[in-house]
Amino acid sequence: MVHGRVSRLSVHDVRFPTSLGGHGSDAMHTDPDYSAAYVVLETDAEDGLKGYGITFTLGRGTEVVVCAVNALAPHVLNKDLGDIVGDFRGFYRQLTSDGQLRWIGPEKGVVHLATAAVLNAVWDLWAKQEGKPLWKLLVDMDPQTLVSCIDFRYITDVLTEEEACEILRQSQVGKKEREEQMLAHGYPAYTTSCAWLGYPDATLKQVGCGTSFCRQFKVKVGADLQDDIRRCRLIRNMIGPEKTLMMDANQRWDVPEAVEWMTKLAEFKPLWIEEPTSPDDILGHAAISKALAPLGIGVATGEQCHNRVIFKQLLQAKALKFLQIDSCRLGSVNENLSVLLMAKKFDIPVCPHAGGVGLCELVQHLIIFDFISVSASLQDRMCEYVDHLHEHFKYPVLIREASYMPPKDAGYSTEMKEDSVKRHRYPDGEVWKKLLTAQRN
Amino acid sequence: MVHGRVSRLSVHDVRFPTSLGGHGSDAMHTDPDYSAAYVVLETDAEDGLKGYGITFTLGRGTEVVVCAVNALAPHVLNKDLGDIVGDFRGFYRQLTSDGQLRWIGPEKGVVHLATAAVLNAVWDLWAKQEGKPLWKLLVDMDPQTLVSCIDFRYITDVLTEEEACEILRQSQVGKKEREEQMLAHGYPAYTTSCAWLGYPDATLKQVGCGTSFCRQFKVKVGADLQDDIRRCRLIRNMIGPEKTLMMDANQRWDVPEAVEWMTKLAEFKPLWIEEPTSPDDILGHAAISKALAPLGIGVATGEQCHNRVIFKQLLQAKALKFLQIDSCRLGSVNENLSVLLMAKKFDIPVCPHAGGVGLCELVQHLIIFDFISVSASLQDRMCEYVDHLHEHFKYPVLIREASYMPPKDAGYSTEMKEDSVKRHRYPDGEVWKKLLTAQRN
Repeated sequence: MVHGRVSRLSVHDVRFPTSLGGHGSDAMHTDPDYSAAYVVLETDAEDGLKGYGITFTLGRGTEVVVCAVNALAPHVLNKDLGDIVGDFRGFYRQLTSDGQLRWIGPEKGVVHLATAAVLNAVWDLWAKQEGKPLWKLLVDMDPQTLVSCIDFRYITDVLTEEEACEILRQSQVGKKEREEQMLAHGYPAYTTSCAWLGYPDATLKQVGCGTSFCRQFKVKVGADLQDDIRRCRLIRNMIGPEKTLMMDANQRWDVPEAVEWMTKLAEFKPLWIEEPTSPDDILGHAAISKALAPLGIGVATGEQCHNRVIFKQLLQAKALKFLQIDSCRLGSVNENLSVLLMAKKFDIPVCPHAGGVGLCELVQHLIIFDFISVSASLQDRMCEYVDHLHEHFKYPVLIREASYMPPKDAGYSTEMKEDSVKRHRYPDGEVWKKLLTAQRN
Repeated sequence: MVHGRVSRLSVHDVRFPTSLGGHGSDAMHTDPDYSAAYVVLETDAEDGLKGYGITFTLGRGTEVVVCAVNALAPHVLNKDLGDIVGDFRGFYRQLTSDGQLRWIGPEKGVVHLATAAVLNAVWDLWAKQEGKPLWKLLVDMDPQTLVSCIDFRYITDVLTEEEACEILRQSQVGKKEREEQMLAHGYPAYTTSCAWLGYPDATLKQVGCGTSFCRQFKVKVGADLQDDIRRCRLIRNMIGPEKTLMMDANQRWDVPEAVEWMTKLAEFKPLWIEEPTSPDDILGHAAISKALAPLGIGVATGEQCHNRVIFKQLLQAKALKFLQIDSCRLGSVNENLSVLLMAKKFDIPVCPHAGGVGLCELVQHLIIFDFISVSASLQDRMCEYVDHLHEHFKYPVLIREASYMPPKDAGYSTEMKEDSVKRHRYPDGEVWKKLLTAQRN
């Protein structure tokens, strides 16, 4: 089925000036312009299908990721798509282990974000050629082929290829029913829109209610304790004692500070505290988990965990109760598969990070696949959702009754509208030309 | 003393075609072209002094780091040097916590390498303005000023500012004598030149002896077990049973593989195995340490540990017996100071990584400072040395009797010869023009 030789890779710096409205602001990222390094793959096949891949960024620095994508391009150009996906593990290894480029990673930061953008485009193209949405491509794949996409380097002490296969085989039971369940009801979502730090109280009240998201709420904390208490009280009063409240510190704290601060917010009964400290601090997260468990607060993290090796250790160290994969920080579907399987082995629910630009579009495929083919459970699980910027995507997410409805279009939902890309290209798109001119005057 | 406003930041992509001779090859980096993103800072001060900073790279990808340096430039340009070093912690935090740029790190990979290059230039300029070699600038600094350069974020559970000050105060005793000792005898070095994987046996024998480095040897392992056994036997026979042999796997193995492989190389009595697995795998290093301790083999790592948070955990988890700082991967002197102090607290010897291009020039300052002002010990300590590419530096290292002699010129020894930079600029320098033309023909 898969065919064609990659004849062109282009990459665009696409930025949305979200900082103007305070959208997405948190304790560490005070002025994000939601952006993406946007990769387009073309082949010489007659079908004319293209693969689109993004990685999410916050504005400045997108040009650095674009530069890294160009550095990776020689590994992709002129490759036969059949050869790529036919030995996807080998191709993944080739991208992440380039003998010169790996020094500036390895498998972390800019090069890994670039790897994600490139591989996301490959997966989009593959799914399009198969005529299936990505989640369905994965669901229909036999276990052996699925694991052949995963690089098990550095994780075999926790998960071998054989174990991964066995997990997938065991989850075959009830797969069909779970697929039907997803198609009928979708995957449960929760929203973060209600409480960005940059929002004034009025906006906060307005977005918090009146939506169909009346089950779970997430609030940003960590900048100022008294203000956090005030805002958490406001929201808890608004939603009542039964509904789920999560808190997100976006890495603001040191380990002792995290424990102290959350002890003071415990009265508002948060289900979890997300990113309490450095995303690199496995032992720190473990210490915080241990200290907060008696208060009924779990630790959630993952959106800035840079690869499977960090996730492996978070699981080994019992450092989290909720694992938050990201569709653009890890090495695309390939690396996320390994994390979903490790989470299953450790019986830790996966609650993906989303929002930004395109993250909802992408990660819904992964979590729907996870439910159908890996976890087989919705217990303690939900997928983040933010109602921003979907209008720029050709196949935007469909939310119904606060659930992600499985995409039906072929591909990975990564394709942006041509006009949106054109207008938001930095610095030469119309939107930026205007803004930059205004700034200069 | 410090003065001037930063009026210009330029950055160059400088590459040396070392892959042509197999220099520097190891199990994971098979064809490195030792390279650097080379930063030059100019001020409006009348002294005309410039600050030079490098970060080390392996060829491809240097342009990505250059791009990241340019992204950081607005934080440096037009700043008063006195304001920068007067609140160095704040300036460090500003660079590493840019609300948009930190997403593509944070404090890891490309952006952190770029941060290192920029800050190395600041330190070079500061030391030059003070008329002192960097090590001496640090040695003469009072404890309070030293710790004011450190960002303690994410490490206060292991080291607070007060503890850091106390460590430095306690090490005041005997400082003068240790400085004299360094000036007279230098800091012990060991060489890695003898056993790059790409070298044929004849070269191996040739470079292994006949130098003044007859105390310690390091051999690259990890590509092929039988070949490793053969080469280790050759070298052990050559150097005799008494001298120290170290092994370096450059992250080739998974955790169980590392233990198995090193068990088979134990007969050659290595002091340490360096980088047995992923640099991100703290718990993996801890497991390997535990398994190899009964065989008398210690674990050494650090050259690819991307920040102080990883080092903190390696120390907490008893994952290493030798800690190898790098002068260009961590956030310059600022972050290395925090690691030297944590190592002191845990009583783990620091044995810096060097080699590449410029790493010896830079790191000698840090380790000489460490001996005089922090560790006060040479027990189990030595600094890596590779005899490559020093001819391109204006103030090259001086090795005497296999020891680094303390630099006497003002600055951080980071300045390259103008002509070397010009000839090796990629892709437009003369050396590359010729090579690229030859490649095309």
